[in-house]
Amino acid sequence: MQTINVGLVGITGYAGMELTRLLAGHLCMRLSMACSRAESGRRLGDYYPFLHGMPGADVVISVFDAHEAAQQCDLVFLAVPAGTAMGMADALLRAGVKVVDFSADFRLRDPGVYAQWYKREHTCPELLPQAVYGLPELYAHDIAKAKLIANPGCYPTSVILGLHAALQHDLILCEDIVVDSKSGATGAGRKPSVPTLFCEVADNFRAYGLPSHRHTPEIEQEISMLAGREVRISFNTHLLPTNRGILSTIYTKLRRPESTLDEVHAAYADTWKDSRWIRLLPKGSLPETRFVRGSMFCDIGLVVDKRTQRLIVLSTIDNLCRGASGQALANANLLCGLPVETGLETLAPLP
Amino acid sequence: MQTINVGLVGITGYAGMELTRLLAGHLCMRLSMACSRAESGRRLGDYYPFLHGMPGADVVISVFDAHEAAQQCDLVFLAVPAGTAMGMADALLRAGVKVVDFSADFRLRDPGVYAQWYKREHTCPELLPQAVYGLPELYAHDIAKAKLIANPGCYPTSVILGLHAALQHDLILCEDIVVDSKSGATGAGRKPSVPTLFCEVADNFRAYGLPSHRHTPEIEQEISMLAGREVRISFNTHLLPTNRGILSTIYTKLRRPESTLDEVHAAYADTWKDSRWIRLLPKGSLPETRFVRGSMFCDIGLVVDKRTQRLIVLSTIDNLCRGASGQALANANLLCGLPVETGLETLAPLP
Amino acid sequence: MQTINVGLVGITGYAGMELTRLLAGHLCMRLSMACSRAESGRRLGDYYPFLHGMPGADVVISVFDAHEAAQQCDLVFLAVPAGTAMGMADALLRAGVKVVDFSADFRLRDPGVYAQWYKREHTCPELLPQAVYGLPELYAHDIAKAKLIANPGCYPTSVILGLHAALQHDLILCEDIVVDSKSGATGAGRKPSVPTLFCEVADNFRAYGLPSHRHTPEIEQEISMLAGREVRISFNTHLLPTNRGILSTIYTKLRRPESTLDEVHAAYADTWKDSRWIRLLPKGSLPETRFVRGSMFCDIGLVVDKRTQRLIVLSTIDNLCRGASGQALANANLLCGLPVETGLETLAPLP
Amino acid sequence: MQTINVGLVGITGYAGMELTRLLAGHLCMRLSMACSRAESGRRLGDYYPFLHGMPGADVVISVFDAHEAAQQCDLVFLAVPAGTAMGMADALLRAGVKVVDFSADFRLRDPGVYAQWYKREHTCPELLPQAVYGLPELYAHDIAKAKLIANPGCYPTSVILGLHAALQHDLILCEDIVVDSKSGATGAGRKPSVPTLFCEVADNFRAYGLPSHRHTPEIEQEISMLAGREVRISFNTHLLPTNRGILSTIYTKLRRPESTLDEVHAAYADTWKDSRWIRLLPKGSLPETRFVRGSMFCDIGLVVDKRTQRLIVLSTIDNLCRGASGQALANANLLCGLPVETGLETLAPLP
Repeated sequence: MQTINVGLVGITGYAGMELTRLLAGHLCMRLSMACSRAESGRRLGDYYPFLHGMPGADVVISVFDAHEAAQQCDLVFLAVPAGTAMGMADALLRAGVKVVDFSADFRLRDPGVYAQWYKREHTCPELLPQAVYGLPELYAHDIAKAKLIANPGCYPTSVILGLHAALQHDLILCEDIVVDSKSGATGAGRKPSVPTLFCEVADNFRAYGLPSHRHTPEIEQEISMLAGREVRISFNTHLLPTNRGILSTIYTKLRRPESTLDEVHAAYADTWKDSRWIRLLPKGSLPETRFVRGSMFCDIGLVVDKRTQRLIVLSTIDNLCRGASGQALANANLLCGLPVETGLETLAPLP
Repeated sequence: MQTINVGLVGITGYAGMELTRLLAGHLCMRLSMACSRAESGRRLGDYYPFLHGMPGADVVISVFDAHEAAQQCDLVFLAVPAGTAMGMADALLRAGVKVVDFSADFRLRDPGVYAQWYKREHTCPELLPQAVYGLPELYAHDIAKAKLIANPGCYPTSVILGLHAALQHDLILCEDIVVDSKSGATGAGRKPSVPTLFCEVADNFRAYGLPSHRHTPEIEQEISMLAGREVRISFNTHLLPTNRGILSTIYTKLRRPESTLDEVHAAYADTWKDSRWIRLLPKGSLPETRFVRGSMFCDIGLVVDKRTQRLIVLSTIDNLCRGASGQALANANLLCGLPVETGLETLAPLP
Repeated sequence: MQTINVGLVGITGYAGMELTRLLAGHLCMRLSMACSRAESGRRLGDYYPFLHGMPGADVVISVFDAHEAAQQCDLVFLAVPAGTAMGMADALLRAGVKVVDFSADFRLRDPGVYAQWYKREHTCPELLPQAVYGLPELYAHDIAKAKLIANPGCYPTSVILGLHAALQHDLILCEDIVVDSKSGATGAGRKPSVPTLFCEVADNFRAYGLPSHRHTPEIEQEISMLAGREVRISFNTHLLPTNRGILSTIYTKLRRPESTLDEVHAAYADTWKDSRWIRLLPKGSLPETRFVRGSMFCDIGLVVDKRTQRLIVLSTIDNLCRGASGQALANANLLCGLPVETGLETLAPLP
Repeated sequence: MQTINVGLVGITGYAGMELTRLLAGHLCMRLSMACSRAESGRRLGDYYPFLHGMPGADVVISVFDAHEAAQQCDLVFLAVPAGTAMGMADALLRAGVKVVDFSADFRLRDPGVYAQWYKREHTCPELLPQAVYGLPELYAHDIAKAKLIANPGCYPTSVILGLHAALQHDLILCEDIVVDSKSGATGAGRKPSVPTLFCEVADNFRAYGLPSHRHTPEIEQEISMLAGREVRISFNTHLLPTNRGILSTIYTKLRRPESTLDEVHAAYADTWKDSRWIRLLPKGSLPETRFVRGSMFCDIGLVVDKRTQRLIVLSTIDNLCRGASGQALANANLLCGLPVETGLETLAPLP
């Protein structure tokens, strides 16, 4: 099998760390470039003690340069902040390198919406039409032919996968969707700050970002497309004292009040019957973040509440693996003609 | 000042432990009886290592007997399971002892509703009319005159206090209330079981009990009374990897879509202006469970989402102190003619 | 009772936060000044959400000025870094204000040792002779007459209280003491940094600072004084994924190999018989950090290992309360002629 | 490649869970039998939600029977308590099935020592001579030829690997070894009990089992053999509020006081130069439990304290993977003629 050389720009955050872990076990891809201005010159294995003695540990961290990247890599992962990514992606695409971008820079199709929520102008709006939203279960065909992947946000991944079957089978009213999401602290990033210190997060729970989390327009864009009409949701986020994991509790109203759990469950089973990573739980079971830890699984539990005529969907993913680096790697697999699961067969270590 | 002798039945759970802590710092009450069949004969300080050398440590644990209790106590706290409490309360009242009951046995006014949700018949329905629901902010007057207090459930406390001002000022529609509550693991009790082991709860998050948590009818009963009409809610619970704390995120629809945060905040400020334990946070601030840890505070944050015309109320309490033992002690203070705050002035230790 | 006005310099760290909590419940002391350059101008209650509505919340944060302090305060607590504290203490003493210093600046009697371990010259060595090491159980008499208190370090407090009885009764050899200490993350401070982020500390355990933690000379100075001879110890520290708590496991060799647990326990009981805050556990019991959380207790457990002829002492304290702010307040009580326990009767909230 | 059929007896504990995870990713071994009296008749995937949709999920749990096992398996892992394992091992060996035993039943060569520490007589002492102590780095040759493997204890693994190089190069005195070990809560097992509940372990730290933890004779037996003389150690254990991970801080005295860190580090590097799983950290670096989570690595850090003439060795492993199931699988690989690393190349997921 031919080795595919890949690069990673942005190693100081948790997404870069997770991608490095996954690449160390990938049989066809080789990390040949790792970029960080702050850490350039060090061996990657010295910066990541967990990587010591493993593939990738000997890569010397360098400063990003698109032409250098084109010589060393077939594909580059951008794990840098929104705003920084778009210029890098532009330069890489011009140099003939495929790009999987972790940031929000290419997720929103309308640059006006981007400007409104991210408080900056988009500098490469001409690239937006060619960017493919990288949810493998929904868009594998387009991903395989793309050069630029907008890797989905962590929360949107959990919500879109949670709602897709209900929309496809027209089970719910779209007017009244409330999403109550909870995320582990890796979602808050690795930049030092008082609110993310151990002693501020441990033995604590809080909401944040209400009512205007930036993932809102991304979710609405994708849900509206799947529903075939404009959908507005109430999207609300909370910070868990855990490292990883998102659980989204999605409150919807049943279109037909007499719908039963059997019917809803059968519809979900139909939608996801060929998707190995979407695990529809047995009726009566509810998902837990630990069962998807470090994996690509999205576990979905369904509750039908006859009293309030609601369908409540519980959707869990690992925000770092499925919600960022693992999904990026799945997209890269598709871009490179590999089976989507390559290097991503890991199971959650329990506990 | 005269010393009031109190008894505690049920010491092996977290609520009994918390009450003992609070009583050790109470200047007018003295723990003179502690009952537990399983631990009878031991000194309380030997069973509770944290109590060593403090008031209450020398009490010898005994088996509950109503007549013995009448000789030793002016008032008894029942921290025993629902179903067990009602018989004990009956015996104590007959013996002339006031009772503060932690269980659900006297919270629901309709014994039929009790039977439906708790799967057992009520054995003392004749006591229900004299039981007072022990929320001091709402019912202090009745509490002071009562002989039997139904101490509110932890989740209901957070929800009722969170919604009261909105109902009083008629700010919201009552048809569409969704409550997404999250609780620390003390709420799951101290009985050994696999799902509450450290390794099953730590670094994990999950929902439980959907869609039929037993606190649902209690919340609906009280909210309906405050609203002056029958209200049905969607009430949903989750387990946090923390020791203490409840955060309820309460999703409501504004009656008047044009309502502003300023208006809503002013209404809440008006309702709670004389309640020292209800802390309405400044506009833009959101509550955190750590800020109420070990205390009687209920911190409330308000969010008005213009996009979806919703009022989102975030309400936090300490489930053990405000949600159980501290509230029980506040009720006992009122029952005994003491200022409600006596022995309950504690602040959260941070972090 | 007369109100004593006290000031606090340094509010952004955990020790300042803890002192504020304790002062809010102190009946005779009033926080009348709180200083922080970074936060000056804000209300203290806005900076500390947990303090909202409580004594101290309305103090406006100011920039430190010794003359201003002299007008507002009878006593000032310095919760600022080593190196910064000594100049402030000097200015305050000149202005006639008593000082309790949390830092290491006045703990080491030999300024040469200070320079060697803290990598800076002492700027006020002339103050060292009047500084009293603030361990109330050992030096209450001197503390009561002092103007400048060197509040002990957290680790030294646990080790000195753990070893004192063994030294007093000449139970152990002093050549071979190994201390293996573990501390919660509040000990690492509140300054933002990657190693103290939640995701770097949670579900992790590590040693740090070996073999030259700065508390080593402080422990050796005090232990040597108690032993009446120079003692060198091996002192080693680890970081726990908890908020609070220190457990020091102290390995010593018995002077008489035939010593029994009964004898050792009796000796410890004799030493501490009048010290309410030192709780010698029953034979066979071992201390836990949770039992002293938020309190002034030092719980001590004793193990005699016949196989290796060792006495192992386990000593636990709350590093923030007993190991810093609570002990500072106890010292302030003594300085002001109050009973040492005033405002410090709190019990650990469990769990 | 030929498929090797393996069985697992004991699935309700964490070690069985971890082995199942590892086997799901093993290309040559197939879990063909899973036994548990309590759960017999259920699908393994129903009992282990994390396994849903993965290899092994469809195995139906059965009651152990040695003859049945012989028909279905080439090798059986025993993850049952000490005392139960020996009889099962005997029956399996008679039926011609190789055995890897997780318990202590075959670790101690002297049945008298076993009886003394485990409080029961050994029922198959005749099997002891053929049992091989399964530390792959030390005994790979013997393991490959064995039929019965005594899989090492978790603590002993960390201590033996930590001390081996020092003993081999004669760097330390053997009289004065003190081991202070800390383990995550999976080490306490999955049987429900109050002391292992979340609310009793979280935000807490404590020692346990002093001074007579059952791993003591196992460590002494193996260390004595490596040292060529009888060694007695002081071995002491603590419970961490983490899921996984052991860190052993090993205090030794240098044989030659003038030994330098350079010399000691070079000796360790020499001993472990061909062992991929033993990662000797660079001078000045200390190990952390998170860096070995879910992996076979043993990370070793070295500290030479000139002041006290000590060598302090810090050794970390994952107690479930390296300390139990992963090591068992490595032994099984050797028993079956496979490369020892097969299926065990996993890296720690961080954080």
